[in-house]
Amino acid sequence: MNTIAFAGLGAMGFPMARNLVDKGFAVRGIDVNVEVLARLRAIGGEGTVTPASAVADADVLMLMVVNAGQAEQILFGNGLLPALPDGATVCLMATCPPGAVRHIAQRVTATGRHFVDAPVSGGVAGATAGSLTIMAACAHGTFKAMLPVFEAIGQRIYHVGEHPGQGATVKTVNQLLCGVHIAVVAEAFALAAKVGVDLKVLLEIMSGSAASSWMLKDRGPRMLQSDPEVTSAVDIFVKDLGIVLEAGREVQAATPIAALAHQLFMATSGRGDGRADDSQVIRSYYALNGTNADTPA
Amino acid sequence: MNTIAFAGLGAMGFPMARNLVDKGFAVRGIDVNVEVLARLRAIGGEGTVTPASAVADADVLMLMVVNAGQAEQILFGNGLLPALPDGATVCLMATCPPGAVRHIAQRVTATGRHFVDAPVSGGVAGATAGSLTIMAACAHGTFKAMLPVFEAIGQRIYHVGEHPGQGATVKTVNQLLCGVHIAVVAEAFALAAKVGVDLKVLLEIMSGSAASSWMLKDRGPRMLQSDPEVTSAVDIFVKDLGIVLEAGREVQAATPIAALAHQLFMATSGRGDGRADDSQVIRSYYALNGTNADTPA
Repeated sequence: MNTIAFAGLGAMGFPMARNLVDKGFAVRGIDVNVEVLARLRAIGGEGTVTPASAVADADVLMLMVVNAGQAEQILFGNGLLPALPDGATVCLMATCPPGAVRHIAQRVTATGRHFVDAPVSGGVAGATAGSLTIMAACAHGTFKAMLPVFEAIGQRIYHVGEHPGQGATVKTVNQLLCGVHIAVVAEAFALAAKVGVDLKVLLEIMSGSAASSWMLKDRGPRMLQSDPEVTSAVDIFVKDLGIVLEAGREVQAATPIAALAHQLFMATSGRGDGRADDSQVIRSYYALNGTNADTPA
Repeated sequence: MNTIAFAGLGAMGFPMARNLVDKGFAVRGIDVNVEVLARLRAIGGEGTVTPASAVADADVLMLMVVNAGQAEQILFGNGLLPALPDGATVCLMATCPPGAVRHIAQRVTATGRHFVDAPVSGGVAGATAGSLTIMAACAHGTFKAMLPVFEAIGQRIYHVGEHPGQGATVKTVNQLLCGVHIAVVAEAFALAAKVGVDLKVLLEIMSGSAASSWMLKDRGPRMLQSDPEVTSAVDIFVKDLGIVLEAGREVQAATPIAALAHQLFMATSGRGDGRADDSQVIRSYYALNGTNADTPA
């Protein structure tokens, strides 16, 4: 596994590709954005002329695209799958609904190529540091072959099962917890703001108590700012909690808290704040309560 | 502040009283359970014959009772407040609605006695280890005088404000986060169980990812057991999330996620599991989904 075609050089994909280049892999970029292909060339990768030429002699086609629809378009719509050598591996790392992943896997493996369902967690910071959590589902042999690739971009690498969709499910559950944790911090802070408690003191206490969460510590400080730098956008959780609900529908499992959190992110996006930092879901609570961080009732 | 009347020697109160005894305070127990008074005598405290004699020369009356109603009953119904020396301090450490705390504080301070609103966090483990988080609201001078008492039972001691109710609000927000964090772990695990993901592997991954929370790591392992040891009961969160909703009603702030989590704990209690470990709120999801941890669909 030496030559990697990498599709989707966005905020996550580009630093992942850079880490692969740095570890000695031959990385061939695929992206509609020609500027990002030039950036890839500048750091030692290849920004090839056509996607088909990028995959022509690739061992792996990694997909770090926005959603399952884009993955299907690249593989089947743009005809990249037939251009990929027989016996090569398609590694889908985008966050997708488990059912869609199973469907894509069936179409890929029917052509004799391998498929790895391997979503990641850790955000742009983890992608940049090469410290992503990787939740891979595939046959044992395929996992073993992919391990050097995963080790170049991730730190906590799990083989969660042999069936495509199992990785996506773990990632879905991860996003369920992440999204709800952000929304509930917003609910808690908005209540405290309305009562008139100092949110900085509150954040300090909660960060060290049983009420703490990774998201509280990470998003909490940005939630106290009225327009913080965007680390991850509201619309990412509109999408990811939407995937949670879809995963629930696929197996008819109730996810009422996730559904409620989804509504709050969606309403935030609906008011025009979809590209704001996801901590700003608190604006939905301020809108509901008629308050903000600075004007307790 | 040398002599402490301590009312409410339950799962939390008894180890707190023991830590006070160990640090050299004269501790006089008040409890309807005579066995627990005998236990207090056995470790060096006083299990006095009548509550009035316990408070007669006390510097502080600490209340670690079940709720605001019990605190009111002890102070005003049983006539303990008039028996407490003039200038002594009433320290309410139970989890109570902020409005009820303000009301009790007014009645106490109207008699010339001091009042401290000082709920705690950390559970039985923190009470036993003397490592509680204490969220105190009172006048600066009163806080300073109480500090040696707090340091005997707690590790993270915060003066969150000067007005009674502010401590209760911080504790309320703490419980909002704690209760929702437990419920959403249940929701996530129940979804994963229905899809057929190994919950042990899932717990390990989530514990180290951005999906992590203090509650995930603490309650998660017990959630995988069908009948775990009880560390804190379902009914505690029926009560505490009820207080969250009451705090929200007092200031007319919306707490929709907390309201939903409350419903899930309440339904668990309604099926007869109120005294089960609070991790068993997952049974409400299993009931909803028609599954359990061992029988994925």
